[in-house]
Amino acid sequence: MSLVAQAEALGRAGKDVIHLGVGEPDFPSPPAVIEAGQRALAAGLTHYTPAAGLPALREAIAAFYQERFAVHVDPERIVLTPGASGALQLVLAALINPGDGVLVTDPGYPCNRHFVELVNGVPQPVRLDPAQGWQLAPGQLAAAWQASTRAALLASPDNPTGNVLSADTVSGLAAEVADRGGALIMDEIYQGLVYDVPGFSALSVAPEAWVINSFSKYFGMTGWRLGWLVAPQDRVADIERMAQNFFLAPPTLAQHAALAAFLPETQTELERRRVVLDGRRRLLLSRLPSLGFRVVGAPQGAFYLYLDASALTNDSFAFCQRLLAEAHVALTPGLDFGSAHGPQQFLRVAYTCDEARLDEAVARMARFLGHL
Amino acid sequence: MSLVAQAEALGRAGKDVIHLGVGEPDFPSPPAVIEAGQRALAAGLTHYTPAAGLPALREAIAAFYQERFAVHVDPERIVLTPGASGALQLVLAALINPGDGVLVTDPGYPCNRHFVELVNGVPQPVRLDPAQGWQLAPGQLAAAWQASTRAALLASPDNPTGNVLSADTVSGLAAEVADRGGALIMDEIYQGLVYDVPGFSALSVAPEAWVINSFSKYFGMTGWRLGWLVAPQDRVADIERMAQNFFLAPPTLAQHAALAAFLPETQTELERRRVVLDGRRRLLLSRLPSLGFRVVGAPQGAFYLYLDASALTNDSFAFCQRLLAEAHVALTPGLDFGSAHGPQQFLRVAYTCDEARLDEAVARMARFLGHL
Repeated sequence: MSLVAQAEALGRAGKDVIHLGVGEPDFPSPPAVIEAGQRALAAGLTHYTPAAGLPALREAIAAFYQERFAVHVDPERIVLTPGASGALQLVLAALINPGDGVLVTDPGYPCNRHFVELVNGVPQPVRLDPAQGWQLAPGQLAAAWQASTRAALLASPDNPTGNVLSADTVSGLAAEVADRGGALIMDEIYQGLVYDVPGFSALSVAPEAWVINSFSKYFGMTGWRLGWLVAPQDRVADIERMAQNFFLAPPTLAQHAALAAFLPETQTELERRRVVLDGRRRLLLSRLPSLGFRVVGAPQGAFYLYLDASALTNDSFAFCQRLLAEAHVALTPGLDFGSAHGPQQFLRVAYTCDEARLDEAVARMARFLGHL
Repeated sequence: MSLVAQAEALGRAGKDVIHLGVGEPDFPSPPAVIEAGQRALAAGLTHYTPAAGLPALREAIAAFYQERFAVHVDPERIVLTPGASGALQLVLAALINPGDGVLVTDPGYPCNRHFVELVNGVPQPVRLDPAQGWQLAPGQLAAAWQASTRAALLASPDNPTGNVLSADTVSGLAAEVADRGGALIMDEIYQGLVYDVPGFSALSVAPEAWVINSFSKYFGMTGWRLGWLVAPQDRVADIERMAQNFFLAPPTLAQHAALAAFLPETQTELERRRVVLDGRRRLLLSRLPSLGFRVVGAPQGAFYLYLDASALTNDSFAFCQRLLAEAHVALTPGLDFGSAHGPQQFLRVAYTCDEARLDEAVARMARFLGHL
């Protein structure tokens, strides 16, 4: 039984489990988003939309890029998808033929590999180095590129490490990819969730990149299943045709609701939530080291810490199992995120509960570790 | 420009286009479904659900199979998906390796081919014969089966022909597939939309079939993007893992709303709509032959007529273009549904408008054809 299933089973059995395993914050969708969904329902807007999404939403996203990051994106290049998952599928279906390689980071988001394999591509892991704070250097990408490699799939902010790439780094990575005639795919689904550092989009420095984004994380709309893809202009017609064939259209209500994600009142609420997440992050950064967890690099984005637990265990999976069973705290072991980076010594904490619960989680871990 | 885009452009230009091209009836979602969606929104149910869907909805679908078709399906075998499209992707990803063949009917639903190709399988068209009323005979399937064939993907009721397979035929087809060690995939997304004949599920006669279904058509929930897959028991764990990787979860609101699809009041409303659709079908069946369109076979399901227009044109694509441009009636040419069955002489009418509009469409076609 997986740890998630085990955590759920404990919950059903009446145990007070603190869930820091799954990548979904506790916030409900912003009020204006909910209200927009209700208005759409009341108006009976339940039919298909165009395959690429509502024109008004494509324009709203383009306006968001302009206002937030001062980058011009033609709305025609923005294709709404069923979650960022749909966007990832479209890019890989468009770019990858059987046997083509795709560079993916290790550690990295585990589903990436499955999407590459769905189209019979070959995931080619690039081992991120904790000693480099999980930062991928352009030279390292260049060294990992093989004759069969067709694309590099990178994320910033990153899951599981919370690492954020700088504009300079992304620019350097994009140059290496372009030199090799490849495609850069940037996963920006945690865009907006950055702390201490400015947010930016790869589109500012790599206008030819394929960019994946989502309403799930920053915008608080996980269950609505709505993401988007920014595609190069000359591939948009292909992508729209594929979107039509694979998805027919993204969910209609989610699209109408997402129009409210860009309202000033929603943006204010999302900024408030970002500050709350930062508070949680700081709490954990200040408390976990004293328990023996080592913070690697500078986790300045998303809502994850990827901790080196080697002072406590040489088997983080077994450690997570025991911690869940005995202390009812759910974390995610490093094995879920790859196998090349020595994952047995790492584990991921998702700071998806409020500070009181995080305090309680830290206290339980302290007791579990015999520190109290 | 595609005919759909052309029809939309005419609409934007203020022309009164009668849309009989796209497979989406004019009905809004049933009132109880809308209300259930509104209650879910008010309760803030916007987080992820389990990857396979809400347990209560899986149970409701199992109960529906029991009540409607007297077939027992373990709720564990039912996996909710983002539209039937998601279900189709899961089945093919589970069954097909590169180079594996999948029998698909010609004419048939055009996206089938794209899903087979997504996983680098080979669509193997089986030409349905208008002289046989588009019915696929078991012997014909057996003859089409090749050494590389791994599965047969069939639909009843069928798009574009409106053809319905009998239980005996499905049983015979399933036996041929089983004899060859293959998998039978039955697309039942138009289930419930049958006229003159009893409804049934392939699960009644082929319990080992993979069955795809949807809330879009019979249940009137197109834009919600919710379908389901019934998988063989021993493959459910695989399918759930893939659903987790490819989709994370189906849309949450759609699932809560779909629970209301099985309420007695909704079922009454859906039966009323089925009778309305049957009225439209009868209207077209009685009126179109006098214009020179020939009805092929017995279109007793879905909301399509696939008409032989060879008395009027030997190029149904050009015919549809002119009909749209001059009479503002949007139909779909046969080329969209395959190339092996002489599609230039066929076109599809989707009876997705009320009888007054259909009357008007027939009158416009009559004028266009010089019959008035």
